[in-house]
Parts: sequence; structure tokens; C-alpha cells
Amino acid sequence: MKFSMERAALLKAVSRAQSVVERRNTIPILANVLIEAEGDTVYFRATDLDIEVVDKDAAQVERAGATTVSAVTLHEIVRKLPDGALVTLSEDGAAGRLTVEAGRSNFSLATLPKEDFPVMASSEYSANFSVKAQVLRRLFDKSKFAISTEETRYYLNGVYMHVAETADGRSLRCVATDGHRLARIDSALPSGAEEMPGVIVPRKTVGELRKLLDDDDMDIAVSVSETKVRFATPEITLTSKVIDGTFPDYTRVIPQNNTRRLEVDASEFARAVDRVSTVSSERSRAVKLQLDEDRLILSVNAPDSGAAEEELAVAYGDERLEIGFNAKYLLEIASQVDRENAVFMFNSSGDPTLMREGSDESAVYVVMPMRV
Amino acid sequence: MKFSMERAALLKAVSRAQSVVERRNTIPILANVLIEAEGDTVYFRATDLDIEVVDKDAAQVERAGATTVSAVTLHEIVRKLPDGALVTLSEDGAAGRLTVEAGRSNFSLATLPKEDFPVMASSEYSANFSVKAQVLRRLFDKSKFAISTEETRYYLNGVYMHVAETADGRSLRCVATDGHRLARIDSALPSGAEEMPGVIVPRKTVGELRKLLDDDDMDIAVSVSETKVRFATPEITLTSKVIDGTFPDYTRVIPQNNTRRLEVDASEFARAVDRVSTVSSERSRAVKLQLDEDRLILSVNAPDSGAAEEELAVAYGDERLEIGFNAKYLLEIASQVDRENAVFMFNSSGDPTLMREGSDESAVYVVMPMRV
Repeated sequence: MKFSMERAALLKAVSRAQSVVERRNTIPILANVLIEAEGDTVYFRATDLDIEVVDKDAAQVERAGATTVSAVTLHEIVRKLPDGALVTLSEDGAAGRLTVEAGRSNFSLATLPKEDFPVMASSEYSANFSVKAQVLRRLFDKSKFAISTEETRYYLNGVYMHVAETADGRSLRCVATDGHRLARIDSALPSGAEEMPGVIVPRKTVGELRKLLDDDDMDIAVSVSETKVRFATPEITLTSKVIDGTFPDYTRVIPQNNTRRLEVDASEFARAVDRVSTVSSERSRAVKLQLDEDRLILSVNAPDSGAAEEELAVAYGDERLEIGFNAKYLLEIASQVDRENAVFMFNSSGDPTLMREGSDESAVYVVMPMRV
Repeated sequence: MKFSMERAALLKAVSRAQSVVERRNTIPILANVLIEAEGDTVYFRATDLDIEVVDKDAAQVERAGATTVSAVTLHEIVRKLPDGALVTLSEDGAAGRLTVEAGRSNFSLATLPKEDFPVMASSEYSANFSVKAQVLRRLFDKSKFAISTEETRYYLNGVYMHVAETADGRSLRCVATDGHRLARIDSALPSGAEEMPGVIVPRKTVGELRKLLDDDDMDIAVSVSETKVRFATPEITLTSKVIDGTFPDYTRVIPQNNTRRLEVDASEFARAVDRVSTVSSERSRAVKLQLDEDRLILSVNAPDSGAAEEELAVAYGDERLEIGFNAKYLLEIASQVDRENAVFMFNSSGDPTLMREGSDESAVYVVMPMRV
């Protein structure tokens, strides 16, 4: 194998590979990236056995072939090469070494046989559809903060992507929850997604997927089966197992009859929550909201260290209410609001509270209260 | 006590205080900043019993008084207040609370009695002199990387500031070493420093001092005794105990008769060292330098992971030499060179190597070789 690539393109590909590779693993070849050169194309493939990413790049291929080499080391080397350098990678099977050359720099890296690399089995996908990057970005960015980190509730360790019936017809929906808060984000159902099975996309996959979604108008090809999901751009294919479990019936958690309505500037609200929570200890950061005629008083009382209070002018016309929340949860929810005011719908101080962005029904958040 | 200050000035003062305060300490009051208001001035004082910093600020003082409050909490609060806010701090002795008000935010913080705050005893200083901030900055910035972190060799855990005899007369000198590398930085002796005792300025003090030295032309008042050192600007006074130990006779370590001379572009050299060291494992990052007629080959050989080599065009006219160094030490020394080429003076592959910045004799670095 022998080929040359410009440093920037090579860096992108190996950077993607090293991010999928697990830092600590007991199977040596899982630390490696599989590099395959053929025709005028080079494929970079990395996996942690749950996720596989393949990067396809144009290159000047002098000699076809394939080998595997440490993804982290190759990434470090390419990162440190001068911008604009032409990098040549070559390997003759006999020596068991990959040579990396750029200018007057010369590296020789240990390889492992390409035959040992675990390429992910291909799948029959039951739904294939195309969706703009910005649509997927919204669905996952606005839901991922609510993913649970509790390993025992493994079926909550991801975003539940599925087809949902809504008042406006059917939609592509992402839901995540950790039992304390929930996010439910809808988008128009793309053609071809009608038969998509509901799948739980693992946290790490959501993170890797995010890196493919920077270009708003890029078309992302999505394929879904009962066990796998695949996201692809013309250059990059990200395939992932989905979580083998049943996502709980979240619809029962979303309050339907909350009538007390608070409207507040989301960033002003977030800054005030952040300030008053400063005085309390890390553990039980409960913020109390006191609502009265167009007035919100946020307060925290931490007997050991002190107390804090802040008043905000808001729109609120319902009866007096006192309710407490975890400060971190409030902050995370408030930070999902992009343009409009945050609209909170309360019931009693013991009931789940709903939040929307203005009048937008396509993104709904639920947060459980805390006793204060 | 009651006074008001603009948020930016208050933030500077409490930020300095919280940086001196130790995060983990068993004596509660050491987590606090002592705030004293009097006339039209407020003093913020913090200590870890080894270092004391006092910040003196103009303020609108309504009621004189003093109290102590958590430096970290106050810093967090002030940091989160909106820019430009006027902040009022008030306390009535009876309640044991400090109130912090800004706009519609109101905080009430637990206090501890000012009488319990350990104010550092004043000292008789045997030398007092003034020196520009940029001069001190050079002395300490260029030497501190070599401070030892080995606690058993506590007398190396700081920068040795003393008066030295040089070919050009007497100078103010800073030296640091960890036994593997050494930095020796000289500057013209300021008037008044002639009788200064040599003192070892602890690492943490060097770090805090650095924050006073951003304004090149600021005059820093330096006072030194056998046990303490003080650095002061008109607003800030930093007092520190010095390390109670004897700095070793470093002059014997500095090679006098190294004759093989290498001159190389410092940043090109550093980048090449950084690149070739990528292939080796973290622990024993030895880089080999092979010197020959105007040619330097840098190489690393790590049997497990691979090998790397890079060639640099340099100025070298002496006989062939092979010598190895810890990559990290080479990088740190090379990064001290500001403008000029790095000049290395070698003897044999087993002897300490000297480095200078061009022909400048006022900054000298020594690094021990490694077997390769």
C-alpha cells in the first residue's frame, strides 16, 4: 500500500477514527484504524464493536493495499505536521511497519494484520430516508442533555428515535429522559421513514453523529433496522448498534392539564438561576420559585453557607405558587430555548412541570419538582 | 460595615483572594477573605498561612467595619453578576451575615469573626528595592519551569532569588532546578538590593506574583528578609514566607568548557522534537540528537510502537556527536527562547549540555542527557 494525501484531509479522517476508538481496551486491534487504499480512494475505518465509522477520501494511490495502525498515534503525528504538508503513507506487508513521510519527517509505526480487524457485519435496513443535517442536529441537540447516565437503566442511556402520531400528522421524534427530566422533540416525517422501527441511539453515537451535522444543508442518509442505525454523508458512514431494550412509555409523564402559565426571558431566567444557586452546596441545589402576579422570586436557602434571592419581572396571571427544582435541571432546560421566551406550565408544587419555547409545540420539556 | 463597589473592581479583588485560599483546608477561616472597610478604602485579605495577599481598593464606604466570608462563594457570586453592576456589601455584627446586593439580586452569606482571621505578622526587611514588572516577569517566567516537584527535596520547590557576581558586575539572579535541568536568569542589580539575602521563593508564590506583573512598566516594590519576601504594587501586597532551606551550589552544575556549538531555529527545533516524540510511550521519552556537519537528525525509537526521524538544517561545525535527552525537557527549554536562535553547547554524550538564547549570557539553561 502506498498513497499520498494533503495533511488537512488526512487529519479529518484520522481525527474521526481516533474519537471512535476506545482509550482503554483489552483487544489491541481495537486501538487501530484500518486503512484501505484502492483505485483513487482511501478508506479509514475505526470501531469500538458498537460503533463503526468509515471515512472515504480521494488520494493519490500508488499501490493498493490495506493495514491497521494505532489511531491515536497516527492522529498525534498528523496533527503535529505542518499545515499544507503532503503526507505519504506506505507499507510493505513483510516489514509489518507503516511509514509516514512528510517533508523531512519520517515515522515508522507498528501495524497489526488487516485480517484481524473486526469489520461490522452489514445489515438489512427496514427504513431508508434522507434528512437535512440541521433537522437531525435539532432533534438530537435538544434532547441529548436528558439522557440518563445510570448504567442500570441502560434503556435510558440514549435518545429514543421513532415515528410518532401528532395533532399535525406523523412526525420523526426524539425523546430522552433520566426520570428527572424529559425532552421530546418533533420534526416533519421524511419520506421513507414511515416504516422505521423505534430505536434507542446510544449516547456515544449521538456524540459522533453530531460531528457530521455542521453543514446545515447537507443531506444525511439515515438507515434504520431493529438492531442498527446508520448515518451517512457522501464521505462518512457512521454505523451503530442500537440499545437492546424497551424505551418506557414516556407519554404518561408529559402533563396535559397544567394550567398555570409563566412566560419569562429564557436567558435572563437562566442567569438568575445560576446566580442564586451559587450559595448552596453542590449536592442538593434546590431553587425555589415563588410566583405571584407578574412577579417571580427565585431563592435558595443553604443554612450552612447562606441564602440568595432574586426577583424577575415575568408574565404570570394565575394564583400564587411555590415550587422547587434542581438548579442544574432548570439551567439545562432553559438553555435549550433559542429565540423565544420560555413558557412554563405548572400544576401544583408536587407535579411535573412542562416547558416550551414560546408557542412552539414541536419541542417539549418536562422537569420534576423538588421539595423545598 | 457597609460599602459599594463597581463589579469589575470587586471581581479583581476577590478573584485574587480566592486564588490564594487553599481549596482543601481543615481550618474554616482559611477559606474566608477578610474584608475591612475604613475611610474610603476597602482591604481584601486572604492567606494560606504561607502567603498573604492584600488588595486595597477605593470604595464608597457608608459604615466602617470588618468581617470574613467564604472567598470562593463571594467570587462565584460576583463573577455571575452582570457587568457594570454596582455591588453593595453590608453587615451588622449581630446577624453574623454579610449581605451582597446588586440590582434585584440579594445574597446573605455566613461570616466568621474577623478576630479569628490569621493576619500575617509584620517583618523587618533587610533589603527594599524597586524593579519594573517586566524585569521580574522575565526572571521568574524563564526559571519557573525548572522548579522541582519532589517534596522530599523541598529546598528545590521554588526559585532561588539572590545577588550574584558576574563578569559585568553584580546582578539580581533567579535560579531553579530539579536536578535534571536548570535555569539561571540574570538582570541588572536594582539599587537597594545589594544587601538582599538569598531566598527561595515557593512555587505558589511565583504563580501569585505572576498575576501582578502584566503591566510592563509598573514599579514593583520588593522587600526581602531571611524568612519573608514581599512584592507590592500601589494596590496589591503579596507577602510570602520563603522556603526554609539551603539552595544547593548550582554553579558547579553549569558546564564551563563545552565547546561543540549547535545553533538552530528554536521554534523549528521544538516542533521537530514534539513530532518525533509522538511515537514513543509517555514514560521514557528519549529523543536522540545526531549532529554532523550543519545537519541535525532527531530520532526516537520505541520498539513497541514505532520509530521517527526528522532532519533539520542547522549550524554545526564540530565533530560528530550523538546525544539523548528527555523530550519534555528539550521542549521546555526551547520554548524559553523568545527571539533569537537557540545555541546549544555540548561536551560529550554523558555530560550536561548548556543552552543560551543567541549570544545572550544573561539567561543560561542546563539539561542533563539521557542514555539512548
